[in-house]
Amino acid sequence: VIVLIGFMGAGKTTVGRLLAPRLGLPFVDTDALIETRTGASVAEIFESKGEGAFREIEREVVAEVLAGPDAVVALGGGAVNDPVTCVALEWTTVVYLDAPYSESMHRIGADPGRPLLTIADPRALYEERKVSYEGLADATVDTSARAPEAIVQEVMLRLAPEEDESARFRRVVVPLADRRYEVVVGAGVLAALDSLLPPSDDAEKAFVIAHRGVVDDALNTLRAALERRGLEPHLLDPPSGEESKSLTTVEALYTELAERRAHRHDLVIGLGGGVITDVAGFVASTFNRGMPLVHVPTTLLGQVDAAIGGKTGVNLPHAKNLVGTVYQPALVICDVELLRGLPHEELRSGLAEVTKYGFIAEPSLLDFVEQRAVELLAGDADALVDVVARSAAIKAEVVAADEFETGERAILNYGHTFAHAIEQTAGYGRIRHGEAVGLGMMAAAYLARELGRIGDEVVERHRRVLDTLGLPNRAELDIDVLEPTWQHDKKYRGGVRFVLLAEIGKADYGIEAPREMVARALERLKR
Amino acid sequence: VIVLIGFMGAGKTTVGRLLAPRLGLPFVDTDALIETRTGASVAEIFESKGEGAFREIEREVVAEVLAGPDAVVALGGGAVNDPVTCVALEWTTVVYLDAPYSESMHRIGADPGRPLLTIADPRALYEERKVSYEGLADATVDTSARAPEAIVQEVMLRLAPEEDESARFRRVVVPLADRRYEVVVGAGVLAALDSLLPPSDDAEKAFVIAHRGVVDDALNTLRAALERRGLEPHLLDPPSGEESKSLTTVEALYTELAERRAHRHDLVIGLGGGVITDVAGFVASTFNRGMPLVHVPTTLLGQVDAAIGGKTGVNLPHAKNLVGTVYQPALVICDVELLRGLPHEELRSGLAEVTKYGFIAEPSLLDFVEQRAVELLAGDADALVDVVARSAAIKAEVVAADEFETGERAILNYGHTFAHAIEQTAGYGRIRHGEAVGLGMMAAAYLARELGRIGDEVVERHRRVLDTLGLPNRAELDIDVLEPTWQHDKKYRGGVRFVLLAEIGKADYGIEAPREMVARALERLKR
Repeated sequence: VIVLIGFMGAGKTTVGRLLAPRLGLPFVDTDALIETRTGASVAEIFESKGEGAFREIEREVVAEVLAGPDAVVALGGGAVNDPVTCVALEWTTVVYLDAPYSESMHRIGADPGRPLLTIADPRALYEERKVSYEGLADATVDTSARAPEAIVQEVMLRLAPEEDESARFRRVVVPLADRRYEVVVGAGVLAALDSLLPPSDDAEKAFVIAHRGVVDDALNTLRAALERRGLEPHLLDPPSGEESKSLTTVEALYTELAERRAHRHDLVIGLGGGVITDVAGFVASTFNRGMPLVHVPTTLLGQVDAAIGGKTGVNLPHAKNLVGTVYQPALVICDVELLRGLPHEELRSGLAEVTKYGFIAEPSLLDFVEQRAVELLAGDADALVDVVARSAAIKAEVVAADEFETGERAILNYGHTFAHAIEQTAGYGRIRHGEAVGLGMMAAAYLARELGRIGDEVVERHRRVLDTLGLPNRAELDIDVLEPTWQHDKKYRGGVRFVLLAEIGKADYGIEAPREMVARALERLKR
Repeated sequence: VIVLIGFMGAGKTTVGRLLAPRLGLPFVDTDALIETRTGASVAEIFESKGEGAFREIEREVVAEVLAGPDAVVALGGGAVNDPVTCVALEWTTVVYLDAPYSESMHRIGADPGRPLLTIADPRALYEERKVSYEGLADATVDTSARAPEAIVQEVMLRLAPEEDESARFRRVVVPLADRRYEVVVGAGVLAALDSLLPPSDDAEKAFVIAHRGVVDDALNTLRAALERRGLEPHLLDPPSGEESKSLTTVEALYTELAERRAHRHDLVIGLGGGVITDVAGFVASTFNRGMPLVHVPTTLLGQVDAAIGGKTGVNLPHAKNLVGTVYQPALVICDVELLRGLPHEELRSGLAEVTKYGFIAEPSLLDFVEQRAVELLAGDADALVDVVARSAAIKAEVVAADEFETGERAILNYGHTFAHAIEQTAGYGRIRHGEAVGLGMMAAAYLARELGRIGDEVVERHRRVLDTLGLPNRAELDIDVLEPTWQHDKKYRGGVRFVLLAEIGKADYGIEAPREMVARALERLKR
């Protein structure tokens, strides 16, 4: 049992909810449990019985939780005043989420214009509690000015010595309400697949969708892991190439699954690039009304983008990805060893998406990519693990906030409105996706500049980052050629909308721009 | 604003959560709002400031909620002690959820073996509050020994005079966590579609999947409603019949949608029987990664079963519905006027599914079907509205508890394990689905009897209900013929499992039965 303690507003519940699934444990909030147990709200208990009685109930519930099965427990802020509870806590792992007094007050304060909470002597209460918390804590984690994700990462680190060997992998949780899953990042993750798969009693077979002859080493590693797990591996090998991302391929895969008697609890595993994971995802989401899905992306682009977030897709002659679903995998394995030997151009293309995350959400990721460009392009494992894990964490957060892209998730399309048009006019396969995204971000930067949203230095930063990675940052593009492709887009309605930066690390979506501004941005892209 | 008041355990939050969506209003729980507002739990506020301060905050929050936009509000149990709040409540609709003292105590009591809650003088508190509640209430609803659904129905009735004209329809909410939707039941509902559609700014077109020449009156009604709503109607008319429930049909529909530039916010409407709604649902769930979907079932079977719950499906040569998704519609329109003129056999087939709900969940529905069989088979609108709404409510509840059929939802398959095998060995289309379900339930009853789960009188009830509806209740079936079909089923794994009754109104799932027992049950079905 891991117990989180701290003053009100320390984030015990938020952190606990994120932490528990990473450790594969249930989460228990003692206040919530008391309410469930008594059938009365905490307010009602206080009101009808007073604080003393509440503490008695709390003591009993806490004792039971601490004696029960392994869990992450958020402890009510005042529970540490109980001596019985304090003794019980000596036998368990206690993490104190600490925050300075001023920040605690700020967090629990209501709207500052209408302060609802004015504690009689809050500083005294805070100081008194702090002493208790520090006395009980096995580890103290400073939470000031840090995002919950970062706090969880540190708690994990502090607890690491107690964890199993898979602690050497970076685990990013995609925290969807009813089907959260992990993206596990590291060198050699695939070989540990058997220990990472969520439990399932009913799975007997694993249907691996992959290209034989292309990823044979990975297939052997995967097969061994599946067999250790007691799953019967079946290889389905569809035709390769973007043109195979079709309903014909899907139908052939359905037929194979039917003939091999795929059960709805059996696993589908997509091992390969974006075409494979998109098709495998679509098939898994629609066969037997949905089968558990594992993605093993073998390109950097797949590891930082395509395999996370649940978008599946198949092309129609009319447009790419016109048929598809939003279907979340049960697990994503990002093994940087699979990237070994990839051509520079392939890594470059993936790094373009990494810089996208930097531009829209995390400036420090841009710094990292610029500083470590040589190692990244050389395939250095540690550097790759870092950018993959950080990119995955950003994507996970955005997807969790807006799974079905009704709003915010659109910022992940930064540079992509231009990029799709560039790819389509060039002819798919004639330009790498990452190169097109790089050019698209460059065009979007010029457009944001035209609109007065950003200054020259932000445009310059785009140019420099792309240069450092050896990605193109100028191109001859004409609005008369791009425009018709936008009008066919499934997101187009009454005018194209752009994702544009407000500053480095912050993007807005749904922005309209006058045609002549777009034309001027494309003019600047030519120079 | 509608305010729910009552003693702890009265079910204010439970009832409020169910009631609000029926009235199209948001739900507000004042305790929860106080916690959000202050950033502190109620316990923390009591602890740091005492009850007096809590009441002050509560008074302010309640005043703000009562002055705000229309909503259903669950009021903290003690808020009525505040004179300012009492005055404010005079201007709003107040519903008192009443329960006898003993039942209230029972509900808020913890595990009776370990009573956590022992109020000093609970009866005095209860009596005092009751006087306040009664004084404030515009309507008092007795909650004793009633399911939340029934309480909500009564609250709706008591509030009815204030509602709009669509109150003449029965509205069943399918309460899924993040995408709840309504099944609207009545005579003439389709003509009111424009007022029932959820709001959407971005929808411009509505793609109606239906058979011209079969449902022309309904199509005209629908077209007019769509035009009133400002939506451009497009008719897609796929081939008819079970054999058209294929990937070929799906691909043709995709092509039409692509050519007509269907946008992801445009509507897909399935108007027809189960084949149409299954295919329309699949297409809507996979085109543009999901489009808003409305079902307008035109068979009784569709209205009570197929169109509710989100299962979509397409057949492969290997088995029915092998490809499909779980994708919830935005709205289901059950217009009993569309059933007018349907052949008796068609109504009978639908009524078999209705009796299924009676057997697994609600004995009174069985009584109703037996008593009103003549009117139901004659297509009496009032009787049909009643059985459709009650069936939809049962299905909605089961689906909400287990959307992806990981457990409980399996009880909806009562009789269906036998029925599917019967249909498959007879050849699809040779026996109506409802007739097969009737025989399947009869076989399941014999099997439950063999296993000693139920007595002869329950078996007899099955026979009588089927007789009353003119459905067959005996058949020549052999286990050697049925068994192979089970082994192909997508749910089969390591032996067939049955849904069997424990009593009338209560079903269990996942039950194994020795082969010779199944054989004996089929023997009895022959007599």
